[in-house]
Amino acid sequence: MTRKQLVEQIFLKHSYLCVGLDTDVDKIPLHLQSHPDAVFEFNKAIIDATKEYCVSYKINTAFYEAMGAKGWEIMQRTVDYIPETHFKIADAKRGDIGNTSAQYAKAFFETLNFDAITVAPYMGSDSLKPFLEYQNKTTIVLGLTSNAGAKDFELQKMLIETHILDEGVHIIKKDTPFLYEWVIDKVREWGTIENLMFVIGATRSDELKSIRNKIPDHFLLIPGVGAQGGDLHEISTHLLNKDAGILVNSSRSIIYASGGEDFAEKAKLAAKDYQGQMQSFLSETANT
Amino acid sequence: MTRKQLVEQIFLKHSYLCVGLDTDVDKIPLHLQSHPDAVFEFNKAIIDATKEYCVSYKINTAFYEAMGAKGWEIMQRTVDYIPETHFKIADAKRGDIGNTSAQYAKAFFETLNFDAITVAPYMGSDSLKPFLEYQNKTTIVLGLTSNAGAKDFELQKMLIETHILDEGVHIIKKDTPFLYEWVIDKVREWGTIENLMFVIGATRSDELKSIRNKIPDHFLLIPGVGAQGGDLHEISTHLLNKDAGILVNSSRSIIYASGGEDFAEKAKLAAKDYQGQMQSFLSETANT
Repeated sequence: MTRKQLVEQIFLKHSYLCVGLDTDVDKIPLHLQSHPDAVFEFNKAIIDATKEYCVSYKINTAFYEAMGAKGWEIMQRTVDYIPETHFKIADAKRGDIGNTSAQYAKAFFETLNFDAITVAPYMGSDSLKPFLEYQNKTTIVLGLTSNAGAKDFELQKMLIETHILDEGVHIIKKDTPFLYEWVIDKVREWGTIENLMFVIGATRSDELKSIRNKIPDHFLLIPGVGAQGGDLHEISTHLLNKDAGILVNSSRSIIYASGGEDFAEKAKLAAKDYQGQMQSFLSETANT
Repeated sequence: MTRKQLVEQIFLKHSYLCVGLDTDVDKIPLHLQSHPDAVFEFNKAIIDATKEYCVSYKINTAFYEAMGAKGWEIMQRTVDYIPETHFKIADAKRGDIGNTSAQYAKAFFETLNFDAITVAPYMGSDSLKPFLEYQNKTTIVLGLTSNAGAKDFELQKMLIETHILDEGVHIIKKDTPFLYEWVIDKVREWGTIENLMFVIGATRSDELKSIRNKIPDHFLLIPGVGAQGGDLHEISTHLLNKDAGILVNSSRSIIYASGGEDFAEKAKLAAKDYQGQMQSFLSETANT
């Protein structure tokens, strides 16, 4: 799925909601637990219930890997079950040297046919390029995350020295961006707004404004509305652009909206509620 | 496997060799390609041929994931086939928010029963702690890698300001470590020499010396001897400590030593050659 097709879906459904399928076998409703294919049945019911209100699904690979090879097989069937109209994200946080990243890209873009994958930037350009080389696929690079540990590295200052010749005089320009800002600055050079997005888990409005200012046109994947405490209004106000430009993910607050037999119905209502709010934020943005 | 048991194996075999099972289905010798279980048969033959000369195997998850669910099943059987005397590393470069990292830890430490996993530090402390909480398991955190992209982030300078009160006077101390040095400084606070190692892909002797100086007792996993260009002599001279303190990995130069029917025999000779060199480096270190 291309960026253009994603934008069309967003304006067709008045929604930029991504539903996170972080399906934990221990949290599946009791009446489904005895089903021989419980995790897939749960995912299927969630997809059927929410697909009208969302434009994307994000599969968190960790929850499937915890089940071993069986989990990967369930992941495979789940991706296949997601309608072609929806943007399929592997939340995998991969990244390694070039020939290894090429294998990860093959795994998620070819073998599993995801539209996008999240990747970690630590190892630099050649660890990301094998993902970015795929046509019509999207690489979503970690920028700023919303967890407490973000302060350890992402929110530490860098000392970047640039050497400039100004009318024959050699000048050293010093900048002190946060690591996550430096990551965004570098990574944006390696991709385009068509094949590159960023994970932005910011919650403070000054951070949201400064990030949108830095990358006005890139799509941003926002994790953590709901259980992780992000505020949909704040995020939408500061980040929506003319193409929407954001996908806002909610996992637990939708898929575990109820732990009973009505889990799918309650998931539908939760997704519908987000969609309703998003519709009004989209029309507010269009009117400004 | 504990650190103590690993050290025992190293001195028993006079080897700190780790064999990397980066098994690419396209690079398996022609005569095996038609075997219905070619990748596992290849791994089995490599393990049988090399186990006398190495103390560890490192499975690169990307190569297995490229095969989908079937690949995970082969990975599972491969881990089970590795003898209990060998330190089993999942080279997976995982890392996510706490509840997700906990699922990755479960996947690799419980479902697959690896002794160790490589993880990426970008998201900070709470992304690493779920791994470090396991008893008798080892978390191997990316420090400095040997790829070209290391210069983009790992080898960029940080600006770390520490506030100190010196005889009532408020002083701001400024340090400018490389990102990878800051990562090592922070991460070492979260683990012990028993449960924490670092990936160090350094090739320059000043870097090797400075890293060993900073963390004299931690085990280091050194990728990239052979195909990635690392020099075993240089690495051993600067990094060996009284417990050996390093695992040196070689993947392609061992497992693809020959592309013919003699692949296992040639892998054995390549592993034996590394072991012989390591034996002499170990005895040199003991004599200094």
